[in-house]
Amino acid sequence: MRQRTILTIAGSDSSGGAGIQADLKTIAALGYYGASALTALTAQNTTGVQGVHGVPPDFLEQQIRSVLDDLKVHAIKTGMLYDAENTRATVRALKAYYSERDMPPLVCDPVCVSTSGHTLLASEALEVLTQELFPLSTLITPNKSEAELLLSRSITSLENMLEAASELLRFGSRAVLLKGGHMTAAVADVDALARAHPDITVVRDVMYTENMEVLAVNAPHIENVVIDVLCQADGTKTVLVRPRIESTSTHGTGCTLSAALACALADGASISEAAVSATAYTHLGIQTAVKLGAGHGPLNHLHSVARMGVPPRTATNPYPFTQLLIKSTADIWKEYVQHPFVQRLGEGSLPKECFVHFIKQDYHYLRYYARAYSLLAAKSSTFPQIDSATQTILNVLREIKTHRAFCASFGVTEDELAQTHEASATSAYGGYILDVGMQGDTTRLLMAVLACLIGYGEVGLWLKREAEKGKEKGGSGVVLEGNPYRAWIEVYAGEEYQEAVRIGLETIEARAAADPPSPARSEEWRAVWERCTRLEKAFWDMALELRD
Amino acid sequence: MRQRTILTIAGSDSSGGAGIQADLKTIAALGYYGASALTALTAQNTTGVQGVHGVPPDFLEQQIRSVLDDLKVHAIKTGMLYDAENTRATVRALKAYYSERDMPPLVCDPVCVSTSGHTLLASEALEVLTQELFPLSTLITPNKSEAELLLSRSITSLENMLEAASELLRFGSRAVLLKGGHMTAAVADVDALARAHPDITVVRDVMYTENMEVLAVNAPHIENVVIDVLCQADGTKTVLVRPRIESTSTHGTGCTLSAALACALADGASISEAAVSATAYTHLGIQTAVKLGAGHGPLNHLHSVARMGVPPRTATNPYPFTQLLIKSTADIWKEYVQHPFVQRLGEGSLPKECFVHFIKQDYHYLRYYARAYSLLAAKSSTFPQIDSATQTILNVLREIKTHRAFCASFGVTEDELAQTHEASATSAYGGYILDVGMQGDTTRLLMAVLACLIGYGEVGLWLKREAEKGKEKGGSGVVLEGNPYRAWIEVYAGEEYQEAVRIGLETIEARAAADPPSPARSEEWRAVWERCTRLEKAFWDMALELRD
Repeated sequence: MRQRTILTIAGSDSSGGAGIQADLKTIAALGYYGASALTALTAQNTTGVQGVHGVPPDFLEQQIRSVLDDLKVHAIKTGMLYDAENTRATVRALKAYYSERDMPPLVCDPVCVSTSGHTLLASEALEVLTQELFPLSTLITPNKSEAELLLSRSITSLENMLEAASELLRFGSRAVLLKGGHMTAAVADVDALARAHPDITVVRDVMYTENMEVLAVNAPHIENVVIDVLCQADGTKTVLVRPRIESTSTHGTGCTLSAALACALADGASISEAAVSATAYTHLGIQTAVKLGAGHGPLNHLHSVARMGVPPRTATNPYPFTQLLIKSTADIWKEYVQHPFVQRLGEGSLPKECFVHFIKQDYHYLRYYARAYSLLAAKSSTFPQIDSATQTILNVLREIKTHRAFCASFGVTEDELAQTHEASATSAYGGYILDVGMQGDTTRLLMAVLACLIGYGEVGLWLKREAEKGKEKGGSGVVLEGNPYRAWIEVYAGEEYQEAVRIGLETIEARAAADPPSPARSEEWRAVWERCTRLEKAFWDMALELRD
Repeated sequence: MRQRTILTIAGSDSSGGAGIQADLKTIAALGYYGASALTALTAQNTTGVQGVHGVPPDFLEQQIRSVLDDLKVHAIKTGMLYDAENTRATVRALKAYYSERDMPPLVCDPVCVSTSGHTLLASEALEVLTQELFPLSTLITPNKSEAELLLSRSITSLENMLEAASELLRFGSRAVLLKGGHMTAAVADVDALARAHPDITVVRDVMYTENMEVLAVNAPHIENVVIDVLCQADGTKTVLVRPRIESTSTHGTGCTLSAALACALADGASISEAAVSATAYTHLGIQTAVKLGAGHGPLNHLHSVARMGVPPRTATNPYPFTQLLIKSTADIWKEYVQHPFVQRLGEGSLPKECFVHFIKQDYHYLRYYARAYSLLAAKSSTFPQIDSATQTILNVLREIKTHRAFCASFGVTEDELAQTHEASATSAYGGYILDVGMQGDTTRLLMAVLACLIGYGEVGLWLKREAEKGKEKGGSGVVLEGNPYRAWIEVYAGEEYQEAVRIGLETIEARAAADPPSPARSEEWRAVWERCTRLEKAFWDMALELRD
């Protein structure tokens, strides 16, 4: 597991939609570690800014130093720097740690003008920003208003945007991403721009492009788009096009974008790759947002992640999924593991005819079990999987021989075994396993066969523990000494069977960890487990009550 | 989608592991929306605190007001409140919005003593905290040192913890969660405690309990545990037990826990349910952390979420998964959709014998296709699924009649159709679909049959568009007028076929959205799509080259 750290140097937004709050949410949602240095605090909400409290420059510097003294930082973004002093403090702190050569990717969001047109940075600060911070930056991300302020001229067309982005390179950053979110263009305008500038790469990554006609005809027609223009010092130019969305959930868009850019760059993406993924992430954040607050609400930063259906494996809990399965069926699981049949078998007081009925039916069940593993082999994709399933079939076939001998010791002949009528509980259980195996994928089939394997493992251990307790006090009467069923108990509590259980547990857990199931899929697996547990319990019922 | 908002009132930790940073990460990882009001800033890292900057009380109050003026807040947590003034400002701001009756759940982490024993709150502030904030709180979460400070006596045993937690209720909160993370106990001590106090509920949720013997025997033996004690004003007492972990990744544990508690309470959990889930979340955060920094590093807040394998559906992109499939196989998809066979068929220049070879092989292919849907019906779990698959089979059977007539119009008799030798490309494709259907679950089978359905839909639309272009300029020579294959083109570009495509798209996307695939599973699905696209291309190759 790689741990990549992103440092954001920006303001705080109490409402949580912009500033370091938006940055930290973005960084987390993309799977990175976020640290932050605050330049100023704002008391604000979706309707506006109610107060600003600047952080003293030396304290800002101290925050940056505290982070850089201790953590390896893989990318940095700056947002609202508040004033000239704090911009200087930022530059000073960065220069104290990095030469131009070893500076990690630095994304500078030159926050000077808010979405509402409010000036956020004194003009004195602008000079420090452009002269001292831009030259250190991998990428600056001005919006239209900021570009206009920086270039002292207005931008009114796509051509203007192209020229402006190019010109902004003169301040010394490696690249400029000029954000056009506030300028609507027609699809045809972009096509015309592309034709006029064949050297430009046009990226329509979030739109339906060539050979996606089946998608486009069934989706809303896109009339209007917005574009961002990326110009790099090496001369490459990229235009990023996306559908224009009507939304009030745009508070913190710039913060989100620059944080997402820093994440992508930290991970080794090229500047244009970073621009493609970060603009797509931000676009989806706006589009999937739930309206919050009375004004311009925040983006949905969490669209890129989903809750896990199973907790992670840890040193003290290497079997979190199996634990979840058992917990979620605790009552029925206990009724099965500590079934009166098991209890009386442990005491040695189980009527012989019940046990005989059980082992005869178990003989039929084992045929289903071998077939289920054959089906698993047939459904497998790799030789190791085929091998593993086949070994289990061979084990069952060997077990059958032992089983016949065991039955003989209880007076049941091979002929009698073969002629035994299959009880309903046996058919129900065997049929269910084969049905699950036919319907689902190999994981679902494994869930069914392993529920049986693990269940008998638990029964074996429970009997063993109770027998051990018996010697002291508080035991439930389970004894091995003189128990007619001792051999049976010792098989399931024994090393060989328990090793098979261990491999089964490892198989389930490895599947759940390699392909973390959604809550829906986890529930599907759980349902198979529960059904098998009920069928196992019904099997004991059948045996104890001598049912057909 | 429910949007629940949590407000944290706490300090800032520049290193990102504690304070509002830990809170916001926790809140995001659990799927909630976080807002924050800062009480103080710290410049700190994993080795210690290098500086503190207090936020003026009226500015703290303004931040809280900005949030509460605009957002409906479902739970609040307080962390480090810095001093008496800021504690008062917090109480004042909360009381301005809420009466005692309508206060949302409030979790107060009474941060007075840091993990390292450093006092974080002046004694004057302690009085305000206990007398004014505790009575408003649903739950207070002192650690051992804080409880000792609050009660002016030392806590040295589990019994002491129980007494202390109970006694802390006198300050007026509805519940007290006394955190015992710094006191190690033996498993036997907890068992003794449980026996001595039969009224106490002992929760061992993150440990292996009754009837999990198969898990316990294969996991490390747990010698030492730590406990938290929850006492509620209604007299119920809960002891939460978890394995003691040796870890230096404990920076921000208290912040994380109280934020997780606030989230659970916001969602309507009872106090004890919240304590169970929040302590488990925090415990896993410590256990899955990657070491960061030179000292006590942060928890892993993201263990509860996973990256999504497929982007969300949106208004402008209702088919994100299919888009991903096409994008990920763009080159081969284009070779298939715009195959020379298709191109020449569109121009009307395709040799008749190629087309005849194609429709004869397609006849064989359709038999596989009908069987694949029969298999889908057999694997389905619901009547609507069985119905949908069966309708498709009936459609194919009807299509077969039309196909026979169509073949006849090209001089191919029914006898000739029946006697046609099946080409390798046909067997390969048909066999693959049935194999996928046999091996995997219904989604995987759907992926295979829909790749075919959607592909021909794209071919049909491409030919239609090119024919339309043809009338203007820039077309690739596709014409309908006088084209011997016009009828074929019109079937696949036609309304009826395109409606089937639309339903197919909806089916894939609904599956991906209902059961968001992990990246591993998404890749599995993609591999089926790619294979089918290659097999489709090979099918055109076979027809064009008249291969057997």
